[in-house]
Amino acid sequence: MIKPFYFDNRALFILDQRRLPREEVWLKCEYAAQVADAIKTLAVRGAPAIGIAAAYGMVLAGSDGSAKLEDAARALMASRPTAVNLEWAVRRMLAKVAGIEPGTVYEVLKAEADLIWEEEIEANRVMARNAMELFPGDKEYTILTHCNAGALATGGMGTALGIIRQLHAEGRLAGVYADETRPLLQGARITAYELEKDGIPVTLITDNMAGWVMRQGRIDAVVVGADRIAANHDAANKIGTYSLAVLADYHKIPFYIAAPVSTCDPQTAEGDAIIIEERAADEVLGFSACRTAPDVGVFNPAFDVTPHALITAIITERAIIRP
Amino acid sequence: MIKPFYFDNRALFILDQRRLPREEVWLKCEYAAQVADAIKTLAVRGAPAIGIAAAYGMVLAGSDGSAKLEDAARALMASRPTAVNLEWAVRRMLAKVAGIEPGTVYEVLKAEADLIWEEEIEANRVMARNAMELFPGDKEYTILTHCNAGALATGGMGTALGIIRQLHAEGRLAGVYADETRPLLQGARITAYELEKDGIPVTLITDNMAGWVMRQGRIDAVVVGADRIAANHDAANKIGTYSLAVLADYHKIPFYIAAPVSTCDPQTAEGDAIIIEERAADEVLGFSACRTAPDVGVFNPAFDVTPHALITAIITERAIIRP
Repeated sequence: MIKPFYFDNRALFILDQRRLPREEVWLKCEYAAQVADAIKTLAVRGAPAIGIAAAYGMVLAGSDGSAKLEDAARALMASRPTAVNLEWAVRRMLAKVAGIEPGTVYEVLKAEADLIWEEEIEANRVMARNAMELFPGDKEYTILTHCNAGALATGGMGTALGIIRQLHAEGRLAGVYADETRPLLQGARITAYELEKDGIPVTLITDNMAGWVMRQGRIDAVVVGADRIAANHDAANKIGTYSLAVLADYHKIPFYIAAPVSTCDPQTAEGDAIIIEERAADEVLGFSACRTAPDVGVFNPAFDVTPHALITAIITERAIIRP
Repeated sequence: MIKPFYFDNRALFILDQRRLPREEVWLKCEYAAQVADAIKTLAVRGAPAIGIAAAYGMVLAGSDGSAKLEDAARALMASRPTAVNLEWAVRRMLAKVAGIEPGTVYEVLKAEADLIWEEEIEANRVMARNAMELFPGDKEYTILTHCNAGALATGGMGTALGIIRQLHAEGRLAGVYADETRPLLQGARITAYELEKDGIPVTLITDNMAGWVMRQGRIDAVVVGADRIAANHDAANKIGTYSLAVLADYHKIPFYIAAPVSTCDPQTAEGDAIIIEERAADEVLGFSACRTAPDVGVFNPAFDVTPHALITAIITERAIIRP
């Protein structure tokens, strides 16, 4: 399975997801600022993956002892505002080296980042197995997914795509409909690429086809990831997720969110309090390198919030929560 | 106001909408087959506009008398399957010259095509005025629209955009949210271009943002066009319309369809009987020359059908119908 990054000889190599599926280019990061920049510019994306990348960013900052750790932590946590995993991972790294022997900082940080990654891989696996109780029997399921909650978003088998991979491995996957996920086309570029590479049958649709596909009875369940889950189980995820949840509700199709516990944010009481990142207008005014629209106003929220009432279940590595 | 075509010296000049907003290129059609090709390849699109263009295609076929009219009629009616205006206009042209003096065929056809166009212009005007009873008071309205149901889709002030222009002229338009309308981006390329040209405030969003924009209370009404309205008032329109109707219903926002009577098809009992055109995979795999997705399977219906229960009102030049 494809990996979003690897750490080697005091550098984090990040697969530049902006250039997928055309080119596989690895960015070499030797400083935390480079990792923060890769997160900000979406070379690496997906809540669990940016948490892990940020942890390795802290390892790089700790190369010369702990002097630069606070600055690096601030830059990494500010690189994107919506995913909670970023803050969670950075704070965990900071806590680990609080008050320890300066000479051991690098090794301790490196071990902790490796552990965070291993835990995410394991969380994906357990989550996928846990989810199987929601897909009972010998039936083959057709799943609709949005954005990319796969290997490239998590470092493991994926959250939503982990469940899809599990169904496929058990011979119980009829197929996947992947929303292309405008404006940045993570579905068309990354999910389609990941599934195709693994031989999993995928049908690409534009985002505005999802309702019509549901109406035709083609979808058994919607499974997506999350970037932040509030204490009341409202969930922020890629823009378009909220529309899918409303459409699934109308068509009486179960709507599942798959996310590790590291995505849960008990500090945020409810969805309304989640900060939604707004990104640049040119993402909407064009399509990849093609500028398509005239110079008009744009609204470009990167995420939306699905209220818990529209979520059938949240699948984590610890439990299945029915909000 | 911009026009989608003009007729001059035995030729129909069609503004190539595939190249908007970058270039304004006029295609010269001297034969009906060229008009059929322009319709098929979407150089001209929009149900009323392709009806008018097909009528002029019949004029071109009648240049040498009536010998080629039946062939031309077949080619024009087959150029796109979903819009009923195409068949309606071609049959009206054929009926007009049945049994008349061969020497007068061209003039009769030309006069009838001009009349069809004038009627559409007038229908747009009356429709927009009729619609005002749905937008009462001094309030300023924010409208969400999809695809392009404007001047370039109708030859007049537009159906959905005609209503928006009317509200703007009366100083009662707060703004327009335009869905970009994947895969062919008629919203980003054509609606944004038309509204911007007329100084009407427009905010472009990706299709998957519509639900989130509604949830934030930004939208007072959804207004779209139609390609075919069945006898029971189910309406076929650009893919994505059905999802918008479900989303509007969930958010208790009125959902209006604006269409001339020529779009109504009493021969089709209900929406399930409407033939939905499926188009090529490459429209979804990329946009224009930008290929973005790997070579995976695609579902690409050009239209969907909104059941009448989700339509608050259908606005025509004759009446406002509440299904």
